[in-house]
Amino acid sequence: MTEFDLAIRGGTLVTATDTLRADLGIRDGRIAAVAERITDAARTLDASGLLVLPGGIDSHVHIAQASGPGIVMADDFASATRAAAAGGNTCVMPFALQPRGASLREATHAYRALAEGQCHIDVAIHLIVSDPTPAVLGQELPALIAEGYTSFKVFMTYDDLVLNDRQILDVFDVARREGARVMVHAEGYDTIRYMSEKLERAGQTAPYGHALSRPELVEREAAHRAIAHAELVDLPIVIVHVSGEQAMEQIAWARARGLKIHAETCPQYLTLTAEDLKGRGNPDPMAGAKYVCSPPPRDSASQAAIWRGLETGLFEIVSSDHCPFRYDDPSGKLNPRAKESFRYVPNGIPGIETRLPILFSEGVSTGRISLNRFVDLTATNHAKLYGLYPRKGSIGVGFDADLTLWDPNRRETLTQARLHHGADYTPWEGFSVTGWPVMTIARGVVVAEDGRFTGAPYRGRVIDRTVQSAPPR
Amino acid sequence: MTEFDLAIRGGTLVTATDTLRADLGIRDGRIAAVAERITDAARTLDASGLLVLPGGIDSHVHIAQASGPGIVMADDFASATRAAAAGGNTCVMPFALQPRGASLREATHAYRALAEGQCHIDVAIHLIVSDPTPAVLGQELPALIAEGYTSFKVFMTYDDLVLNDRQILDVFDVARREGARVMVHAEGYDTIRYMSEKLERAGQTAPYGHALSRPELVEREAAHRAIAHAELVDLPIVIVHVSGEQAMEQIAWARARGLKIHAETCPQYLTLTAEDLKGRGNPDPMAGAKYVCSPPPRDSASQAAIWRGLETGLFEIVSSDHCPFRYDDPSGKLNPRAKESFRYVPNGIPGIETRLPILFSEGVSTGRISLNRFVDLTATNHAKLYGLYPRKGSIGVGFDADLTLWDPNRRETLTQARLHHGADYTPWEGFSVTGWPVMTIARGVVVAEDGRFTGAPYRGRVIDRTVQSAPPR
Amino acid sequence: MTEFDLAIRGGTLVTATDTLRADLGIRDGRIAAVAERITDAARTLDASGLLVLPGGIDSHVHIAQASGPGIVMADDFASATRAAAAGGNTCVMPFALQPRGASLREATHAYRALAEGQCHIDVAIHLIVSDPTPAVLGQELPALIAEGYTSFKVFMTYDDLVLNDRQILDVFDVARREGARVMVHAEGYDTIRYMSEKLERAGQTAPYGHALSRPELVEREAAHRAIAHAELVDLPIVIVHVSGEQAMEQIAWARARGLKIHAETCPQYLTLTAEDLKGRGNPDPMAGAKYVCSPPPRDSASQAAIWRGLETGLFEIVSSDHCPFRYDDPSGKLNPRAKESFRYVPNGIPGIETRLPILFSEGVSTGRISLNRFVDLTATNHAKLYGLYPRKGSIGVGFDADLTLWDPNRRETLTQARLHHGADYTPWEGFSVTGWPVMTIARGVVVAEDGRFTGAPYRGRVIDRTVQSAPPR
Amino acid sequence: MTEFDLAIRGGTLVTATDTLRADLGIRDGRIAAVAERITDAARTLDASGLLVLPGGIDSHVHIAQASGPGIVMADDFASATRAAAAGGNTCVMPFALQPRGASLREATHAYRALAEGQCHIDVAIHLIVSDPTPAVLGQELPALIAEGYTSFKVFMTYDDLVLNDRQILDVFDVARREGARVMVHAEGYDTIRYMSEKLERAGQTAPYGHALSRPELVEREAAHRAIAHAELVDLPIVIVHVSGEQAMEQIAWARARGLKIHAETCPQYLTLTAEDLKGRGNPDPMAGAKYVCSPPPRDSASQAAIWRGLETGLFEIVSSDHCPFRYDDPSGKLNPRAKESFRYVPNGIPGIETRLPILFSEGVSTGRISLNRFVDLTATNHAKLYGLYPRKGSIGVGFDADLTLWDPNRRETLTQARLHHGADYTPWEGFSVTGWPVMTIARGVVVAEDGRFTGAPYRGRVIDRTVQSAPPR
Repeated sequence: MTEFDLAIRGGTLVTATDTLRADLGIRDGRIAAVAERITDAARTLDASGLLVLPGGIDSHVHIAQASGPGIVMADDFASATRAAAAGGNTCVMPFALQPRGASLREATHAYRALAEGQCHIDVAIHLIVSDPTPAVLGQELPALIAEGYTSFKVFMTYDDLVLNDRQILDVFDVARREGARVMVHAEGYDTIRYMSEKLERAGQTAPYGHALSRPELVEREAAHRAIAHAELVDLPIVIVHVSGEQAMEQIAWARARGLKIHAETCPQYLTLTAEDLKGRGNPDPMAGAKYVCSPPPRDSASQAAIWRGLETGLFEIVSSDHCPFRYDDPSGKLNPRAKESFRYVPNGIPGIETRLPILFSEGVSTGRISLNRFVDLTATNHAKLYGLYPRKGSIGVGFDADLTLWDPNRRETLTQARLHHGADYTPWEGFSVTGWPVMTIARGVVVAEDGRFTGAPYRGRVIDRTVQSAPPR
Repeated sequence: MTEFDLAIRGGTLVTATDTLRADLGIRDGRIAAVAERITDAARTLDASGLLVLPGGIDSHVHIAQASGPGIVMADDFASATRAAAAGGNTCVMPFALQPRGASLREATHAYRALAEGQCHIDVAIHLIVSDPTPAVLGQELPALIAEGYTSFKVFMTYDDLVLNDRQILDVFDVARREGARVMVHAEGYDTIRYMSEKLERAGQTAPYGHALSRPELVEREAAHRAIAHAELVDLPIVIVHVSGEQAMEQIAWARARGLKIHAETCPQYLTLTAEDLKGRGNPDPMAGAKYVCSPPPRDSASQAAIWRGLETGLFEIVSSDHCPFRYDDPSGKLNPRAKESFRYVPNGIPGIETRLPILFSEGVSTGRISLNRFVDLTATNHAKLYGLYPRKGSIGVGFDADLTLWDPNRRETLTQARLHHGADYTPWEGFSVTGWPVMTIARGVVVAEDGRFTGAPYRGRVIDRTVQSAPPR
Repeated sequence: MTEFDLAIRGGTLVTATDTLRADLGIRDGRIAAVAERITDAARTLDASGLLVLPGGIDSHVHIAQASGPGIVMADDFASATRAAAAGGNTCVMPFALQPRGASLREATHAYRALAEGQCHIDVAIHLIVSDPTPAVLGQELPALIAEGYTSFKVFMTYDDLVLNDRQILDVFDVARREGARVMVHAEGYDTIRYMSEKLERAGQTAPYGHALSRPELVEREAAHRAIAHAELVDLPIVIVHVSGEQAMEQIAWARARGLKIHAETCPQYLTLTAEDLKGRGNPDPMAGAKYVCSPPPRDSASQAAIWRGLETGLFEIVSSDHCPFRYDDPSGKLNPRAKESFRYVPNGIPGIETRLPILFSEGVSTGRISLNRFVDLTATNHAKLYGLYPRKGSIGVGFDADLTLWDPNRRETLTQARLHHGADYTPWEGFSVTGWPVMTIARGVVVAEDGRFTGAPYRGRVIDRTVQSAPPR
Repeated sequence: MTEFDLAIRGGTLVTATDTLRADLGIRDGRIAAVAERITDAARTLDASGLLVLPGGIDSHVHIAQASGPGIVMADDFASATRAAAAGGNTCVMPFALQPRGASLREATHAYRALAEGQCHIDVAIHLIVSDPTPAVLGQELPALIAEGYTSFKVFMTYDDLVLNDRQILDVFDVARREGARVMVHAEGYDTIRYMSEKLERAGQTAPYGHALSRPELVEREAAHRAIAHAELVDLPIVIVHVSGEQAMEQIAWARARGLKIHAETCPQYLTLTAEDLKGRGNPDPMAGAKYVCSPPPRDSASQAAIWRGLETGLFEIVSSDHCPFRYDDPSGKLNPRAKESFRYVPNGIPGIETRLPILFSEGVSTGRISLNRFVDLTATNHAKLYGLYPRKGSIGVGFDADLTLWDPNRRETLTQARLHHGADYTPWEGFSVTGWPVMTIARGVVVAEDGRFTGAPYRGRVIDRTVQSAPPR
């Protein structure tokens, strides 16, 4: 009888802190040994010349989420997790959304039912609290946290999702009491409305108006407000998808005062700009809609600031904020009212499959960030922030054998034709990258190879998390 | 034939990022395997209930260093490394000091000769450049870097060591070209002199005058100046022994601008205050001399700021700045002129043996910092900053088997009677700690147990480092 | 026929920039000449040894304003202007408040009718917009501005007054278009509600709870938000009654970015602290209610910060925020529900008569601020900010002869017995001051002498202002 | 017998705070009356349609100052004061420079002798301390201060002038004790040397190299250092000729901490850029030398920052830093070694005659600053900072009748042909301005008209000042 089910030999293991040459022995889906030489395995993979990374964890993705009348998100659990796996990920975290007036608990259980049996990799579910009634605050939320849904997002904008400051404080209060993690979408509802209506009155209704309607101060003000609430309640929070320097300045200020404010950014804020919302020279006046997401991408100075934030540790995670809509489709970007105003263009872009190659190529291959920080930003800190740790997020004895074999030298070009997501385009069409996930292994099983999905279907589980309030530091 | 020389079983391994339960297999002084269960070893240590940490690296210690006429440093390599080992360390980094007018190369080689064969654990040697002549800048320094002395310190104060701004820029230039790491003692010479003479004229000559002569702005101004020089030359630097919030503010400001400024602090700035220089109620008017070090300890608000800096990542390393002098001795604190003025009290306190217990107890046991950050601050980042990595600084296959078994629950009281250093007192006499190094293992050999030195003598090596310019992030 | 109606001889004239020895000649209520020697006057006042200051302008007072069911403000126009005159003022600016659901125009005209014929000195009326309906924004407000009501206040808190962010933006928009000046009460409604309810649940219902319910971050967050709105609309604003360093930091940050953010503070933030809300040792458990105002006074560190803000020019005006309620009265501080919770203690303290002596004594007599800055802070900048300039606010040919003769050396003790306001107490009972208004002259007529009201009744006018958008700088 | 020697009728008087319509009566060289109508004068000037401003005070000019071997400053007292008067000024403040090794007292008295009888307007003399020997610190400086030389400048750069930090502290100490005002030229000597030699080694010796040799951090670091010294000694200082945003940030930071740091800027930092040092397209490779001054002009972003600093009050004075050298002359910019390296191009540009029109046109006519601030920046604050107040600096009874009649609408083009200074060029050749000094009146006598010098010769006095330590606020 062999000792291990699988040996990965000859690779260079990378964790958030270490880089070393060793073999891995896997048994029952977990890592059982790390050693100079492991030979006694039922199956052996040769990782010579490759990096062995913790599988990517994308803690901010939207899958099969209700998106307003007539609008349909382009991914279900099967397509989204297939795409994620092909892109080097072994776990994703979508959101169960409570519709206004409905039970959060029922919405969550219904959403989980959608996921069960449909996932190619593991998923863990965040909640979105859009209607914090006394019942939700008093019973549903504590019960769901106890069940393992230990993180939730609050929105400071969007008609159907926005919470007012008092509601945010009440939700923060529950999170503090129950030990849950809160994510904040920090953009101010009223300032956006004010700007949007002003732009519409001025006839600036094209997709580019979306960027104009949300200048950086919209994000900065909301970030400051969220930080003040977190300070009042004494609750660590995660400010997600930070897009620009002004919000970064608020976060740095808060940290220097000793507040525990965590921060996430996304590839779109490192590689796209508001100019893209003009359509990149495409004569189709709606082409810019492909890049409409919130917050909007900014400019090259902002990109430089965001990179600085990755280098200096201001940002702890990079997620995709995958939020896929088809472009050429009445259920998506080109819905009937989208031409009337940017306001009706669904907010969101696909990115679940391209996050890791873009960050690796622009960050590691260029020398801006170390390999170890790449791992921290794409896997370890996600696991730590959201209670998947120490089951996931690193390479070591006892961790799930969630691994990505990565070729740091391979050059590829991103293109819709080879992606697995449900959207009909990628904002990074034609984008060249150096570095590529050549194999994704989920709990010891190969699920993708060479950027193609190959896994046995429907093997992923929905993971319950235990209450976890420890910061990643 | 057994596979491993030594197995450490049942412990909880801690790296700068991970904490996990596994056995360790050691062969030829290196870690050869990490696995769920390792049985095939010549010798087995039971680490049940204990933490297995990377051995402490103290990258800022002064050993057998020339200290002015009639003044003798209280430790030679034997006593210093014995004390270090007893305190949970497996590597220390002292300084080869170039006397003004002398050859840096000769001073370095002479200093190395002192170390060879006298060390109980490994050491690596930094340089102190006090006289950057054209020969030093043009030949000696590049040659020494090539030999493996890849780091050096510059002083912005002290009569015999201070470099002017131009000299600092020239040394920085060499470091940038040759890829070496520079440490900066950031206190302004002229401001200290001005204050010292003013205090002396006013008759404030007691040891407490030392603290008055170096208000926080002395450190802040020098930090700003060093940062400007680093920016001009485009060189990452390490600002050592940061004592207060004003210097921290400069460092945070520099980082937010994208400059690579690394920062170190020490246990004295977390636990002592300027009030201690008044002698803690001891009727001996010189008793405060026991706490005279530079920069001086500040106040409780500064301590809180420094802790905040540890929590938020502003500080990357905690060293001891061990600089031992005997108190009751004409060669030390009570030298003939010390009563005339605080100016003649040798600057420095012992701390090589107490650094780890103090930081663990005040940091980890109180919940201020995580175990992983403790490891990063006391071992991993030292190794990365100064080129000992990936040989030392973490636990993983291929690393030196430099390990400390740590009992997180053991309560002890620090007292001179049980310390191994050459000083005749400790500033932390009577200080209670929770957490204790119960065994120190250097390259696979037990060198200390239970706080007592037990190792075979003279086993440590002087380590040459390769040029290393990569930042730890 | 004499050339002047009145000559003031031998005094030292003080403007916001100059201090000089000269005589003043007054004709028809205006200053007609400033000269070395003026003899040709019908009446002569000897000002030898006295300062001749521009009469105080208090641009932030509440008079006869609706204050909730059963609550009655303690001053009508007659008593308030009598008290103002006795305290060295020659003009005050109260607020016409729009009740929710009512017409701003009607409320304003009704309020003006209350004032006409009842004032002992001139008044100019600000508006309070509490219900910015389309009619208010589109017709009433522009019409009122054109009539001469060129300034208004918006509240970010109080049940009956609070505007949401969108409403604030809309009001700002009108102000920008019509050239009006906007004052902002910056405290966050939701954070206060959250804290108040939490304190009530914990049984902390005494007056001191008022201070706990409004920590500094409540003001800081609202200040940041108001600044963001001002930036979005490109409108200069005045943040009134700033109480602490955190809001000051936001204002300084905004100015450094080039935003025109003006700032006001009040004597209570220079001389009182939250501790006063505990009642100053008075056994009456409600005694602290006498000091309940919003924002609450802070602590001595905040006082020092506010002084620094006066010294460095961060603050441009000091007002009283006079908002008088009787203490021992069911219509005032001791209304039937006040014992239930601090929440029902009317917010506000009297100060119209004591502002100038307190600021002079604590600011000028102590050397913290110059005489010229005192004049700027208490008169000139008020006139410039709110469109009373160049009719009022300085001493020079053509200005209204609104003057206060001030004895810089006179020592007095503030006490309710000698005050003229309608409140039955003063928060500064027993407060000693150096410097005293010995005569108040309104448009050439003596209206108060030696702290006693002596003026012919009902001489003050309600002043219409022309649209004025110029900043004071 | 008429009451006044001169009446100025119908003008609009402007002080740092007020703007009003009045007549002025002048007697014995002083203002004796300001009134609605003054008729009883020996002579009457009609100022209808004109502004009546306090005559410009230029507190930072270099006249007939030793400038190194073979280099000759292009102005003596006669030409400099003639040019100043033609440019709307009534007082200038040049520097008596102590040569190293020489007596400051003798140098000062010799310099004063040069001035006596040669000045067309009043002058007051600052000192430059280049050699703070014990005799200078202990006797000469206190004696000179007592004689009326109550202000001096220290340099942080230039071979012949630089003081080290200790010397600066000692000079600051004397200033604090004796109540004198200190100006600081804040650029770091060593950083400039380091950069200059590096550029020379790289062959970048053209005039543009001057700008490269002094990046903004050179000024920022020195400003931080000077601020630290001022903080240590508790002395208000003036940081002169601030050129960029980095130094401004230090000043703003210091003020927010309560330190009294005053700041000056100059027209060159508002209107020129480093690009000008490339010669503006002139084929003469040395043409850029015409714009070589220290600190060098920066870029358009810095200009915007400096304007912001004028608008927000960060800057309190605008001076010319007039430092005239002939261009086409071996004693000036084209001295024998200037082509070898930018290092030998004399530092300084002429500006005494153009300061007021440039600032008025670019500041007041464009609406960036108010008329009152213009007066404060160009006259009042100079007088207050340097002890000329209340004799000079404003318009009011008792002030010297130093006045400039200004036509705010007149458009002119600056050109060397019409200037009176000793330089053979102006950096603002062809610069168009709106606003022009049409008459300069010094102590009641017309000295310039319409930009042409017309005054009776040699009427100016050298003014002794009394010790003055009060800040301008």
